[in-house]
Amino acid sequence: MDRLKRQIGFIVELDKLKTILRQSWLADGSRRENSAEHSWHVALMALVLAEHANAGANLDLARVVKLLLLHDVVEIDAGDVLIYDVSGNADKAERERRAAERIYGILPEDQSAELRALWEEYELGETEEARFAAALDRLMPLLHNFLTEGRAWMHHGITADQVLAANARIAAGSAALWDYARGLIDEAVERGYLLPPKEKNSDP
Amino acid sequence: MDRLKRQIGFIVELDKLKTILRQSWLADGSRRENSAEHSWHVALMALVLAEHANAGANLDLARVVKLLLLHDVVEIDAGDVLIYDVSGNADKAERERRAAERIYGILPEDQSAELRALWEEYELGETEEARFAAALDRLMPLLHNFLTEGRAWMHHGITADQVLAANARIAAGSAALWDYARGLIDEAVERGYLLPPKEKNSDP
Repeated sequence: MDRLKRQIGFIVELDKLKTILRQSWLADGSRRENSAEHSWHVALMALVLAEHANAGANLDLARVVKLLLLHDVVEIDAGDVLIYDVSGNADKAERERRAAERIYGILPEDQSAELRALWEEYELGETEEARFAAALDRLMPLLHNFLTEGRAWMHHGITADQVLAANARIAAGSAALWDYARGLIDEAVERGYLLPPKEKNSDP
Repeated sequence: MDRLKRQIGFIVELDKLKTILRQSWLADGSRRENSAEHSWHVALMALVLAEHANAGANLDLARVVKLLLLHDVVEIDAGDVLIYDVSGNADKAERERRAAERIYGILPEDQSAELRALWEEYELGETEEARFAAALDRLMPLLHNFLTEGRAWMHHGITADQVLAANARIAAGSAALWDYARGLIDEAVERGYLLPPKEKNSDP
Protein backbone atom coordinates (compact mmCIF):
# COMPACT_ATOMS: atom_id res chain seq x y z
CA MET A 1 0.00 0.00 0.00
CA ASP A 2 2.95 2.29 0.62
CA ARG A 3 4.02 1.41 -2.93
CA LEU A 4 0.71 2.57 -4.41
CA LYS A 5 0.83 5.73 -2.29
CA ARG A 6 4.24 6.64 -3.71
CA GLN A 7 3.02 5.95 -7.23
CA ILE A 8 -0.02 8.16 -6.73
CA GLY A 9 2.21 10.82 -5.15
CA PHE A 10 4.30 10.87 -8.33
CA ILE A 11 1.22 11.06 -10.55
CA VAL A 12 -0.13 13.99 -8.53
CA GLU A 13 3.27 15.72 -8.74
CA LEU A 14 3.15 15.43 -12.54
CA ASP A 15 0.09 17.68 -12.57
CA LYS A 16 2.47 20.64 -12.14
CA LEU A 17 3.87 20.18 -15.66
CA LYS A 18 0.54 21.60 -16.89
CA THR A 19 1.55 24.96 -15.43
CA ILE A 20 4.98 25.15 -17.12
CA LEU A 21 4.69 27.43 -20.14
CA ARG A 22 6.77 26.98 -23.26
CA GLN A 23 7.73 29.67 -25.75
CA SER A 24 5.48 28.13 -28.41
CA TRP A 25 2.01 29.46 -29.07
CA LEU A 26 -0.92 27.19 -29.89
CA ALA A 27 -1.63 26.95 -33.61
CA ASP A 28 -4.72 29.17 -33.13
CA GLY A 29 -2.58 31.81 -31.40
CA SER A 30 -4.86 31.89 -28.35
CA ARG A 31 -2.22 31.27 -25.70
CA ARG A 32 1.22 29.78 -25.02
CA GLU A 33 1.53 26.05 -24.87
CA ASN A 34 2.32 24.15 -21.67
CA SER A 35 4.80 21.32 -21.40
CA ALA A 36 2.22 18.64 -20.49
CA GLU A 37 0.04 19.12 -23.56
CA HIS A 38 3.20 19.45 -25.67
CA SER A 39 4.37 16.08 -24.37
CA TRP A 40 1.07 14.49 -25.43
CA HIS A 41 1.33 16.09 -28.83
CA VAL A 42 4.85 14.84 -29.58
CA ALA A 43 4.02 11.35 -28.29
CA LEU A 44 1.15 11.14 -30.78
CA MET A 45 3.42 12.64 -33.44
CA ALA A 46 5.72 9.66 -32.88
CA LEU A 47 2.89 7.20 -33.60
CA VAL A 48 2.09 8.98 -36.86
CA LEU A 49 5.63 9.70 -38.12
CA ALA A 50 7.50 6.56 -36.98
CA GLU A 51 7.98 5.38 -40.56
CA HIS A 52 10.25 8.37 -41.23
CA ALA A 53 12.80 7.45 -38.55
CA ASN A 54 16.30 6.71 -39.82
CA ALA A 55 16.18 3.48 -37.82
CA GLY A 56 13.32 2.20 -39.98
CA ALA A 57 11.70 -1.01 -38.80
CA ASN A 58 14.31 -1.40 -36.05
CA LEU A 59 12.84 1.54 -34.14
CA ASP A 60 11.29 0.59 -30.78
CA LEU A 61 8.29 2.90 -31.06
CA ALA A 62 6.93 2.08 -27.61
CA ARG A 63 10.18 3.33 -26.11
CA VAL A 64 10.12 6.49 -28.23
CA VAL A 65 6.66 7.20 -26.80
CA LYS A 66 7.87 6.64 -23.23
CA LEU A 67 10.84 8.96 -23.80
CA LEU A 68 8.55 11.69 -25.09
CA LEU A 69 6.00 11.31 -22.30
CA LEU A 70 8.84 11.76 -19.79
CA HIS A 71 11.21 14.13 -21.57
CA ASP A 72 9.98 17.38 -20.00
CA VAL A 73 9.01 16.20 -16.51
CA VAL A 74 12.14 17.79 -14.99
CA GLU A 75 10.81 21.18 -16.09
CA ILE A 76 8.47 21.04 -13.07
CA ASP A 77 11.50 22.23 -11.08
CA ALA A 78 13.91 23.41 -13.75
CA GLY A 79 11.53 25.36 -16.00
CA ASP A 80 11.48 25.56 -19.78
CA VAL A 81 14.46 27.28 -21.39
CA LEU A 82 14.37 28.71 -24.90
CA ILE A 83 16.66 26.69 -27.14
CA TYR A 84 18.33 29.96 -28.28
CA ASP A 85 18.96 31.23 -24.74
CA VAL A 86 22.70 30.67 -24.14
CA SER A 87 22.87 31.88 -20.53
CA GLY A 88 19.65 30.07 -19.56
CA ASN A 89 21.10 26.86 -20.93
CA ALA A 90 24.42 27.18 -19.08
CA ASP A 91 23.35 25.56 -15.79
CA LYS A 92 20.34 23.75 -17.24
CA ALA A 93 21.89 20.28 -17.00
CA GLU A 94 22.62 20.65 -13.30
CA ARG A 95 19.17 22.07 -12.52
CA GLU A 96 17.53 19.23 -14.42
CA ARG A 97 19.66 16.62 -12.68
CA ARG A 98 18.50 17.89 -9.29
CA ALA A 99 14.92 17.97 -10.55
CA ALA A 100 15.12 14.36 -11.71
CA GLU A 101 16.53 13.35 -8.34
CA ARG A 102 13.61 14.88 -6.47
CA ILE A 103 10.73 14.07 -8.82
CA TYR A 104 11.61 10.49 -9.80
CA GLY A 105 12.61 9.98 -6.16
CA ILE A 106 8.93 10.11 -5.21
CA LEU A 107 8.40 6.72 -6.91
CA PRO A 108 9.21 3.29 -5.44
CA GLU A 109 12.93 2.62 -6.02
CA ASP A 110 12.63 0.22 -8.95
CA GLN A 111 10.37 2.57 -10.89
CA SER A 112 12.39 5.61 -9.91
CA ALA A 113 15.46 3.99 -11.49
CA GLU A 114 13.55 2.79 -14.57
CA LEU A 115 11.89 6.11 -15.43
CA ARG A 116 14.95 8.15 -14.63
CA ALA A 117 17.01 5.92 -16.93
CA LEU A 118 14.54 6.65 -19.74
CA TRP A 119 14.90 10.38 -19.17
CA GLU A 120 18.71 10.02 -19.18
CA GLU A 121 18.53 8.03 -22.40
CA TYR A 122 16.60 10.91 -23.95
CA GLU A 123 19.10 13.48 -22.69
CA LEU A 124 22.15 11.53 -23.87
CA GLY A 125 20.63 11.06 -27.31
CA GLU A 126 22.79 8.05 -28.12
CA THR A 127 20.08 5.53 -29.05
CA GLU A 128 18.01 5.55 -32.24
CA GLU A 129 14.90 6.04 -30.09
CA ALA A 130 16.34 9.06 -28.29
CA ARG A 131 17.48 10.61 -31.55
CA PHE A 132 14.09 10.18 -33.19
CA ALA A 133 12.29 11.47 -30.09
CA ALA A 134 14.53 14.57 -30.05
CA ALA A 135 13.87 15.12 -33.76
CA LEU A 136 10.12 15.28 -33.09
CA ASP A 137 10.62 17.55 -30.09
CA ARG A 138 12.45 19.98 -32.39
CA LEU A 139 10.14 19.68 -35.38
CA MET A 140 7.05 20.53 -33.35
CA PRO A 141 8.03 24.14 -32.44
CA LEU A 142 8.90 24.74 -36.11
CA LEU A 143 5.33 23.80 -36.97
CA HIS A 144 3.92 26.00 -34.22
CA ASN A 145 6.05 28.91 -35.28
CA PHE A 146 5.07 28.49 -38.91
CA LEU A 147 1.36 28.25 -38.07
CA THR A 148 1.48 31.39 -35.92
CA GLU A 149 3.42 33.38 -38.53
CA GLY A 150 6.65 33.11 -36.56
CA ARG A 151 5.24 34.44 -33.31
CA ALA A 152 7.92 33.08 -30.95
CA TRP A 153 10.72 33.59 -33.49
CA MET A 154 9.74 37.22 -34.05
CA HIS A 155 9.26 37.88 -30.33
CA HIS A 156 12.82 36.73 -29.64
CA GLY A 157 14.34 38.14 -32.86
CA ILE A 158 15.54 34.73 -33.99
CA THR A 159 17.17 34.42 -37.44
CA ALA A 160 17.08 31.57 -39.95
CA ASP A 161 20.71 30.61 -39.35
CA GLN A 162 19.97 30.17 -35.64
CA VAL A 163 16.96 27.99 -36.44
CA LEU A 164 18.96 25.89 -38.88
CA ALA A 165 21.82 25.43 -36.41
CA ALA A 166 19.60 24.61 -33.43
CA ASN A 167 17.51 22.10 -35.34
CA ALA A 168 20.11 20.35 -37.49
CA ARG A 169 19.98 17.50 -34.98
CA ILE A 170 16.62 16.53 -36.50
CA ALA A 171 18.67 14.85 -39.27
CA ALA A 172 20.19 12.43 -36.76
CA GLY A 173 16.72 11.05 -36.03
CA SER A 174 15.12 11.43 -39.43
CA ALA A 175 16.68 12.61 -42.67
CA ALA A 176 13.20 12.82 -44.21
CA LEU A 177 11.86 15.09 -41.48
CA TRP A 178 14.96 17.28 -41.65
CA ASP A 179 14.29 17.75 -45.38
CA TYR A 180 10.75 18.72 -44.54
CA ALA A 181 11.91 21.07 -41.76
CA ARG A 182 14.37 22.85 -44.03
CA GLY A 183 11.60 23.44 -46.55
CA LEU A 184 9.47 24.89 -43.77
CA ILE A 185 12.27 27.19 -42.61
CA ASP A 186 12.88 28.44 -46.17
CA GLU A 187 9.20 29.11 -46.65
CA ALA A 188 9.03 30.90 -43.29
CA VAL A 189 11.76 33.27 -44.42
CA GLU A 190 10.01 33.87 -47.77
CA ARG A 191 6.75 34.66 -46.02
CA GLY A 192 8.42 37.00 -43.53
CA TYR A 193 7.73 34.77 -40.49
CA LEU A 194 11.44 34.39 -39.78
CA LEU A 195 14.34 36.82 -40.15
CA PRO A 196 16.83 35.89 -42.89
CA PRO A 197 20.34 34.73 -41.90
CA LYS A 198 22.48 37.49 -40.40
CA GLU A 199 25.01 38.95 -42.85
CA LYS A 200 28.42 37.54 -42.15
CA ASN A 201 30.97 40.19 -41.23
CA SER A 202 33.41 40.80 -44.05
CA ASP A 203 36.34 41.41 -41.66
CA PRO A 204 38.99 38.82 -41.00
CA MET B 1 5.24 13.72 -50.06
CA ASP B 2 1.45 13.79 -50.11
CA ARG B 3 1.62 11.12 -47.40
CA LEU B 4 3.78 13.28 -45.14
CA LYS B 5 1.53 16.29 -45.81
CA ARG B 6 -1.52 14.36 -44.62
CA GLN B 7 0.34 13.15 -41.54
CA ILE B 8 1.40 16.70 -40.68
CA GLY B 9 -2.16 17.87 -41.35
CA PHE B 10 -3.43 15.41 -38.75
CA ILE B 11 -0.77 16.46 -36.23
CA VAL B 12 -1.70 20.11 -36.70
CA GLU B 13 -5.40 19.26 -36.28
CA LEU B 14 -4.60 17.58 -32.95
CA ASP B 15 -3.49 20.96 -31.59
CA LYS B 16 -7.17 21.81 -31.10
CA LEU B 17 -7.53 19.24 -28.30
CA LYS B 18 -5.55 21.69 -26.15
CA THR B 19 -8.53 24.04 -26.25
CA ILE B 20 -11.13 21.48 -25.13
CA LEU B 21 -11.81 22.04 -21.46
CA ARG B 22 -12.78 19.24 -19.08
CA GLN B 23 -14.79 19.57 -15.90
CA SER B 24 -11.73 18.74 -13.79
CA TRP B 25 -9.63 21.43 -12.19
CA LEU B 26 -5.87 21.24 -11.94
CA ALA B 27 -4.64 19.99 -8.58
CA ASP B 28 -3.54 23.53 -7.68
CA GLY B 29 -7.04 24.85 -8.45
CA SER B 30 -5.68 27.47 -10.86
CA ARG B 31 -7.81 26.53 -13.90
CA ARG B 32 -9.76 23.75 -15.58
CA GLU B 33 -7.84 21.00 -17.29
CA ASN B 34 -7.80 20.50 -21.05
CA SER B 35 -8.15 17.17 -22.81
CA ALA B 36 -4.65 17.17 -24.34
CA GLU B 37 -2.76 17.55 -21.06
CA HIS B 38 -5.19 15.09 -19.45
CA SER B 39 -4.30 12.54 -22.16
CA TRP B 40 -0.62 12.95 -21.38
CA HIS B 41 -1.28 12.55 -17.68
CA VAL B 42 -3.25 9.30 -18.00
CA ALA B 43 -0.71 7.86 -20.46
CA LEU B 44 2.05 8.40 -17.90
CA MET B 45 -0.27 7.04 -15.19
CA ALA B 46 -0.43 3.82 -17.23
CA LEU B 47 3.37 3.48 -17.18
CA VAL B 48 3.41 3.88 -13.41
CA LEU B 49 0.36 1.79 -12.45
CA ALA B 50 0.55 -1.05 -15.01
CA GLU B 51 1.38 -3.61 -12.33
CA HIS B 52 -2.11 -3.12 -10.82
CA ALA B 53 -3.97 -4.18 -13.98
CA ASN B 54 -6.14 -7.27 -13.62
CA ALA B 55 -4.43 -8.64 -16.73
CA GLY B 56 -1.10 -8.74 -14.88
CA ALA B 57 1.92 -9.56 -17.01
CA ASN B 58 -0.31 -10.24 -20.01
CA LEU B 59 -1.13 -6.57 -20.35
CA ASP B 60 0.19 -4.97 -23.55
CA LEU B 61 1.27 -1.71 -21.95
CA ALA B 62 2.35 -0.09 -25.20
CA ARG B 63 -1.19 -0.52 -26.52
CA VAL B 64 -2.71 0.89 -23.32
CA VAL B 65 -0.57 3.99 -23.83
CA LYS B 66 -1.71 4.33 -27.45
CA LEU B 67 -5.36 3.98 -26.44
CA LEU B 68 -4.95 6.72 -23.85
CA LEU B 69 -3.09 9.08 -26.18
CA LEU B 70 -5.97 8.74 -28.65
CA HIS B 71 -9.01 8.29 -26.42
CA ASP B 72 -10.16 11.92 -26.35
CA VAL B 73 -9.17 13.08 -29.86
CA VAL B 74 -12.81 12.97 -31.03
CA GLU B 75 -13.58 15.69 -28.47
CA ILE B 76 -12.06 18.18 -30.94
CA ASP B 77 -15.45 18.03 -32.69
CA ALA B 78 -17.69 16.36 -30.12
CA GLY B 79 -16.63 18.22 -26.96
CA ASP B 80 -16.17 16.88 -23.46
CA VAL B 81 -19.32 15.68 -21.73
CA LEU B 82 -19.60 15.34 -17.95
CA ILE B 83 -19.92 11.65 -17.06
CA TYR B 84 -23.01 12.50 -14.94
CA ASP B 85 -24.77 14.44 -17.72
CA VAL B 86 -27.52 12.09 -19.01
CA SER B 87 -28.86 14.29 -21.81
CA GLY B 88 -25.38 15.32 -22.97
CA ASN B 89 -24.43 11.66 -23.22
CA ALA B 90 -27.51 10.67 -25.24
CA ASP B 91 -26.16 11.51 -28.71
CA LYS B 92 -22.51 11.42 -27.71
CA ALA B 93 -21.75 8.18 -29.54
CA GLU B 94 -23.07 9.50 -32.85
CA ARG B 95 -21.27 12.85 -32.51
CA GLU B 96 -18.03 11.05 -31.70
CA ARG B 97 -18.43 8.65 -34.63
CA ARG B 98 -18.73 11.59 -37.02
CA ALA B 99 -15.75 13.25 -35.35
CA ALA B 100 -13.64 10.12 -35.79
CA GLU B 101 -14.63 9.95 -39.45
CA ARG B 102 -13.45 13.49 -40.10
CA ILE B 103 -10.36 13.67 -37.90
CA TYR B 104 -8.83 10.25 -38.58
CA GLY B 105 -9.83 10.76 -42.22
CA ILE B 106 -7.10 13.41 -42.50
CA LEU B 107 -4.46 10.65 -42.28
CA PRO B 108 -3.30 8.38 -45.10
CA GLU B 109 -5.78 5.48 -45.36
CA ASP B 110 -3.72 2.78 -43.63
CA GLN B 111 -3.02 4.99 -40.63
CA SER B 112 -6.55 6.31 -40.57
CA ALA B 113 -7.83 2.74 -40.21
CA GLU B 114 -5.19 1.80 -37.65
CA LEU B 115 -5.69 4.75 -35.31
CA ARG B 116 -9.43 4.70 -35.62
CA ALA B 117 -9.45 0.99 -34.74
CA LEU B 118 -7.51 1.82 -31.57
CA TRP B 119 -10.08 4.45 -30.62
CA GLU B 120 -12.90 1.97 -31.27
CA GLU B 121 -11.14 -0.62 -29.15
CA TYR B 122 -11.08 1.90 -26.32
CA GLU B 123 -14.75 2.74 -26.76
CA LEU B 124 -15.87 -0.89 -26.91
CA GLY B 125 -13.91 -1.73 -23.76
CA GLU B 126 -13.72 -5.42 -24.54
CA THR B 127 -9.96 -5.97 -24.35
CA GLU B 128 -7.89 -6.02 -21.17
CA GLU B 129 -6.00 -2.99 -22.49
CA ALA B 130 -9.16 -0.99 -23.09
CA ARG B 131 -10.53 -1.88 -19.67
CA PHE B 132 -7.34 -0.86 -17.91
CA ALA B 133 -7.11 2.36 -19.93
CA ALA B 134 -10.72 3.22 -19.03
CA ALA B 135 -10.00 2.50 -15.37
CA LEU B 136 -7.21 5.08 -15.38
CA ASP B 137 -9.36 7.60 -17.24
CA ARG B 138 -11.92 7.30 -14.43
CA LEU B 139 -9.49 7.25 -11.54
CA MET B 140 -7.80 10.48 -12.62
CA PRO B 141 -10.83 12.79 -12.10
CA LEU B 142 -11.37 11.23 -8.68
CA LEU B 143 -7.84 12.32 -7.77
CA HIS B 144 -8.39 15.81 -9.17
CA ASN B 145 -11.67 16.16 -7.34
CA PHE B 146 -10.13 14.99 -4.10
CA LEU B 147 -7.15 17.34 -4.43
CA THR B 148 -9.40 20.34 -5.13
CA GLU B 149 -11.75 19.55 -2.22
CA GLY B 150 -14.43 18.25 -4.58
CA ARG B 151 -14.54 21.32 -6.78
CA ALA B 152 -16.21 19.75 -9.85
CA TRP B 153 -18.39 17.43 -7.72
CA MET B 154 -19.67 20.33 -5.62
CA HIS B 155 -20.20 22.56 -8.65
CA HIS B 156 -22.45 19.94 -10.23
CA GLY B 157 -24.06 18.75 -6.98
CA ILE B 158 -22.83 15.18 -7.47
CA THR B 159 -23.45 12.61 -4.71
CA ALA B 160 -21.35 9.66 -3.58
CA ASP B 161 -23.77 7.08 -5.01
CA GLN B 162 -23.43 8.71 -8.44
CA VAL B 163 -19.65 8.63 -8.18
CA LEU B 164 -19.66 4.99 -7.10
CA ALA B 165 -22.03 3.97 -9.92
CA ALA B 166 -20.19 5.92 -12.63
CA ASN B 167 -16.79 4.61 -11.62
CA ALA B 168 -17.51 0.99 -10.74
CA ARG B 169 -16.08 0.09 -14.15
CA ILE B 170 -12.63 0.77 -12.69
CA ALA B 171 -12.88 -2.73 -11.16
CA ALA B 172 -13.02 -4.32 -14.61
CA GLY B 173 -9.56 -2.94 -15.35
CA SER B 174 -8.03 -3.09 -11.91
CA ALA B 175 -9.51 -4.51 -8.71
CA ALA B 176 -6.65 -2.94 -6.75
CA LEU B 177 -7.31 0.56 -8.11
CA TRP B 178 -11.04 0.21 -7.50
CA ASP B 179 -10.25 -0.58 -3.85
CA TYR B 180 -8.12 2.53 -3.73
CA ALA B 181 -10.82 4.61 -5.46
CA ARG B 182 -13.50 3.50 -3.02
CA GLY B 183 -11.28 4.52 -0.12
CA LEU B 184 -10.81 7.92 -1.75
CA ILE B 185 -14.57 8.35 -2.26
CA ASP B 186 -15.30 7.43 1.38
CA GLU B 187 -12.69 9.88 2.60
CA ALA B 188 -14.06 12.58 0.29
CA VAL B 189 -17.51 12.19 1.90
CA GLU B 190 -15.99 12.29 5.40
CA ARG B 191 -14.10 15.48 4.59
CA GLY B 192 -17.14 17.14 3.04
CA TYR B 193 -15.72 17.19 -0.50
CA LEU B 194 -18.56 15.02 -1.81
CA LEU B 195 -22.25 14.88 -0.90
CA PRO B 196 -23.28 11.65 0.85
CA PRO B 197 -25.54 9.18 -0.99
CA LYS B 198 -29.09 10.46 -1.53
CA GLU B 199 -31.62 9.01 0.94
CA LYS B 200 -33.59 6.29 -0.77
CA ASN B 201 -37.34 7.05 -0.86
CA SER B 202 -39.28 4.85 1.49
CA ASP B 203 -42.33 4.74 -0.81
CA PRO B 204 -44.24 3.36 -2.76
